[in-house]
Order: sequence, then C-alpha cells, then structure tokens
Amino acid sequence: MKLATLRDGTRDGALVVVRRDGTTFARAHDVARTLQAALDAWEATEPGLRALSERLDAGKLEGEPLDVRQLHAPLPRAYEWVDGSAYLNHVRLVRKARGAEPPPTLETDPLVYQGGSGVLLGPTDDLILPEPAWGMDFESEIVVVLGDVPQGIRAADASRYVRLVTQCNDVSLRNLIPPELAKGFGFFQSKPASAFSPVAVTPDELGDSWRDGKLHLPLLVEVNGVAFGRPDAGTDMVFSFPQLIAHAAKTRSLCAGSIIGSGTISNQDRSVGSACIAERRMLEQLETGAPKTPFLKFGDRLRIDMQDREGRSIFGAIEQHVGRR
Amino acid sequence: MKLATLRDGTRDGALVVVRRDGTTFARAHDVARTLQAALDAWEATEPGLRALSERLDAGKLEGEPLDVRQLHAPLPRAYEWVDGSAYLNHVRLVRKARGAEPPPTLETDPLVYQGGSGVLLGPTDDLILPEPAWGMDFESEIVVVLGDVPQGIRAADASRYVRLVTQCNDVSLRNLIPPELAKGFGFFQSKPASAFSPVAVTPDELGDSWRDGKLHLPLLVEVNGVAFGRPDAGTDMVFSFPQLIAHAAKTRSLCAGSIIGSGTISNQDRSVGSACIAERRMLEQLETGAPKTPFLKFGDRLRIDMQDREGRSIFGAIEQHVGRR
Repeated sequence: MKLATLRDGTRDGALVVVRRDGTTFARAHDVARTLQAALDAWEATEPGLRALSERLDAGKLEGEPLDVRQLHAPLPRAYEWVDGSAYLNHVRLVRKARGAEPPPTLETDPLVYQGGSGVLLGPTDDLILPEPAWGMDFESEIVVVLGDVPQGIRAADASRYVRLVTQCNDVSLRNLIPPELAKGFGFFQSKPASAFSPVAVTPDELGDSWRDGKLHLPLLVEVNGVAFGRPDAGTDMVFSFPQLIAHAAKTRSLCAGSIIGSGTISNQDRSVGSACIAERRMLEQLETGAPKTPFLKFGDRLRIDMQDREGRSIFGAIEQHVGRR
Repeated sequence: MKLATLRDGTRDGALVVVRRDGTTFARAHDVARTLQAALDAWEATEPGLRALSERLDAGKLEGEPLDVRQLHAPLPRAYEWVDGSAYLNHVRLVRKARGAEPPPTLETDPLVYQGGSGVLLGPTDDLILPEPAWGMDFESEIVVVLGDVPQGIRAADASRYVRLVTQCNDVSLRNLIPPELAKGFGFFQSKPASAFSPVAVTPDELGDSWRDGKLHLPLLVEVNGVAFGRPDAGTDMVFSFPQLIAHAAKTRSLCAGSIIGSGTISNQDRSVGSACIAERRMLEQLETGAPKTPFLKFGDRLRIDMQDREGRSIFGAIEQHVGRR
C-alpha cells in the first residue's frame, strides 16, 4: 500500500492512497483525514486504507490523476524525527573531512541525533539557501515511520512497529557543523528542514527487498541531471532499523508517526559514488589532495529516487531546486 | 488567560480555559478542540478563548471544578521541543562536574539542543526510572510556546511570537550524558520525556514580571517536601527568550506550537539553592571535596512551582513521584 498527503490548504494536508504505478490516487478522508490520524489509530484505519488501495490497484476505482507537485511530505510535520548514522563508511569519511575522530563505540553504539520535525519539506519544495557560505549539502537516505513504540523495546521485537518506509533528503549546512558540534550539544542550526519523497509505502510493498530490517536496493542520486551516486541501502548498513528503533526507545517511548532515518547511505565500494557531496569531496581530497565538487549553489537541481527490480519508482522522486528564498 | 489540556481519552486531550485562581475550568471545544488546533489558528481562536476566560474570571460562567490530576501537559505532544541553556552559571557548574570545558563562544552563541517532543509528561505523571544507575535528575525551567516563526527572524522582532509561557521539568539521566556527548551528536538517550505544568498562560497574565523577554520571578523547587532551591528566572539569564528564538530560527522556520526552553534556572547567588541536583552536587564537591546529595531514587517526590507576588501559583505545580514503571 502506498500513501501520500495532498496539499489542500491545511497544515497537515489530506491523506490519499496512491496506485502502485503512481499514476492516480484516491482520497482517504472517509478512513482518516490525515496520515498522522491514520497512524494514531492504525489498527482501525489500516483495513479501510488497504481496501481502497486494492480497489485502486485492481482498477475497480478510477482515482484522480496524480501530479507529485500537489503533494506535501507524507507527514508535513511530525512529532519526532530521529536520524541515525548507520553507514559507518559515511561517518568515517565525513569525520575525516572535518578532522574529527569517530567515537570508540562507533561499531557497537549507534549514532543518532534528534532532528527538527515541525516543518518537513515536500518532494518538490525548493531548498532555500539564504547564505551560500553555509555550505549546503544533501544527504540521501531511507526512513521508516513508526507506530507507538514502548520504552525499552528490544531490537528483536522492534520491526513490528515499522508502519511505512520512504526516502529523505536530510539537508546539512556543512560549514556550520564543526563550530556547532564543538559546542557539545549536537546539531541544530546546521540541520535545516529535511525533505521527503511523495509516497510512503508499507513494508509488504517492498517484497523481499525489505529483509533483516534493511531495504536492499540502490538509491539513485542525480545532481543537475548527472548521476552522482547509486549506493545500495542494504549494503554496509551496520545498524538495522530495528536496532536504531531499540536505541531510540531505550529511555523513552516513541509516539505513532515518529520518523527514524538510516543516515546517509554509503557503500565501501567507491565505484557506486556517493549520496552526499561531503563524501565525494573527501574522496577527491584523498585521491587528488583537494576537494573539487562544490556544495550546492543557487539553481542546482537534485533528484533522489529508488526503483524496484523492474525499474519502477517505489516512493516517487525527490526533485528539488536550490532557491534564494 | 490560562489554558490547559484535559485528559479525555484522546492523545491530544481537550482544550480548556482555566480560571485565574486555578479552581475551575471551562471547556473550549466550541473554539478549538485541542491546544495545538488553537495555536494553529491563533488569530481566529484567541478572541473566543479570551471571551471564555473573561466570563470565567468574572463569575459569569460557572465552570467545572479543576483537579490537576485530570490534566495532561498543555501540549501532550509537540512538533518541536528546543531547549536552550541560557543560565551560564548552570552550564559552568555542570560542565565542571563532568570535567568538560564550556565552549569559547559560551557568552555570545546560545547553547540549544533538540529534545524529543512526541511524548510529553503531564504535571502529575510519574517519572519512570528503569535503571537507578542512570542517575536521574530534574531540571526546572521556564518555557515558551510559539506561533509560526519565520526563518531568519531577528531577536528584536521575536517576542511577538510568544503565545504562552509555562514551566517544565527537563529530566536528565546524568550518568548517560558524558558517554553520549562524547559521541559528538548531542543528547538523546540521556534525555527522557520532559514534564510540564498544568497550565500555560499568555504573557499578559504575568504583568510586569514578564519583561525584557524574561520572567522575573523565583521558581520554587522542593524534593520530598524540603526546599531545594528558589532561583529567580529573571536573574543571570544571559540569553532572553527572543534571543533563543532567533537562534533556533536562524536556518529554519518553526511551526506553531514549538516549545523553547530557558534551560535550568541558576543564579550566581548560591544562597538561593539550585533547580537541579547536578548543580548542588558540584557545589558540595567544591565546598567539601565530595558530592553528597544523591540523584533521584524510587519514591522521591518532586515539586516545582512559581508564584506571583501575592503568593498565588501561576502555572500550577509540577508534582511528580519517581516510580519503577
């Protein structure tokens, strides 16, 4: 089942079910007005949403033509946005880039940070860059949207709380990160609003690509129409989503609609490229002595997509321009 | 005007207006179902809420008797919880306690961290401590609840976005902090759910105690019925709320209902005591060579209150027990 949120003039938009091929949608207001409302009462709402989805996919319901520019992020605002950093190849490269040592617990204790969740960008919303010197970068990753997770859940029991899967552009302002992290309290100003794909899907929609708490498919990243990277999200992910969930819920419960991110996808195989600019810059520096690829600038175009084995987009693409304001 | 959220079996509770003396309340469902809904459309909802409030205060509306145990936090979940650390006396003492240097920008660049906001505790909810060795501490502070704040707002223009003021217990697990901060991404597991006072008030309710973007009144903290501290929230607050808001909105907008905290209130005058245990322990260590006061343990009772100059509770007290689960 594929779900999305239609812009309707309200803050939280209108929940819709999207046909598997992404061409049409059906309004779900008779089941739940918003995606958050659906997640808040999932046991009650899931059957109705699945019924709509099946009728739409079977052609028994005509649906309305879908233009992704009509869509918000699946959750235009969320109660928690917890981003992990499960691809340690990424952690090692970006820490090397800013001259910081990875922590000694890197391979046993997941890195996560609490992100701002009050404003989440839609798939075609501009990336606003008030100050180019901030060094804007994209970070392409997979995220899961949760049901209510009790405090203290173990990783072995956590996968059942994954309601939806989608992709995210976790925007970073690279040049604000070193001074901010030096203060000791983690990211804040260096992490502006993140952007999300048009569509979030239930795990069953992913077939056997969703296994071991990971999504085993490459994420396709293009900048200005040129391939930038296609790292596989299932490769080199050292902590699975259930492990990230257990880490996040160690000392508190998580409410329905909480979003957990994988961190920037990164493979040790350098031939697949990168899912953020900082990594490519570090590799350039290692190979040639200096970074070459600039951070994002006004007018740049970014595209992040993931396709199933038949080449069909699963979540719809994130397609963003960098704008002034 | 005083607002609160009644437990009614739903996640977000029911918005009520509370009489100034805290004895009765009136249901506000004809104006807005929840506090978040009221904040989402403040221009439209504020007049109706104020009309209810005036009738209740004037005795033209009878109201229902208020028992604070019926109340959630004013926002049982919020889209952002951004906690500052504006009392540098606190920062210096707790960093000394864990052998960490304050950052060189301490006096010019506010410290803030992004807190978990999906589960916020009500004023009488138990503090659950699964593992006493985690070192549970309370941190007593003042918070503001915002309207929609545009990205890039200057401090001089930020006070107009303060919709409500209330008090908070920003719970910390002290023994989890040093290893977590050493990882470089800030607080996460060391910050379980925060608790809030029964009532949030509009700034006009505070009279001239609310000036210069600060609340000039002492916060009264008791542990197990014994006075623990009464630091003045207007004294030694180095960054005002408008300055904290401007800092938080530098690179992103903040949505209505975002909560900004002052950080633990702390005065240089040691005779007023402390608003958290860690500070008292550090002062004990400086004076006698060793900390004496233990962190919270099962059965401990905590009370945090703030009174106006006539001795009336403004927000109602936070009264929590430490429980096992």
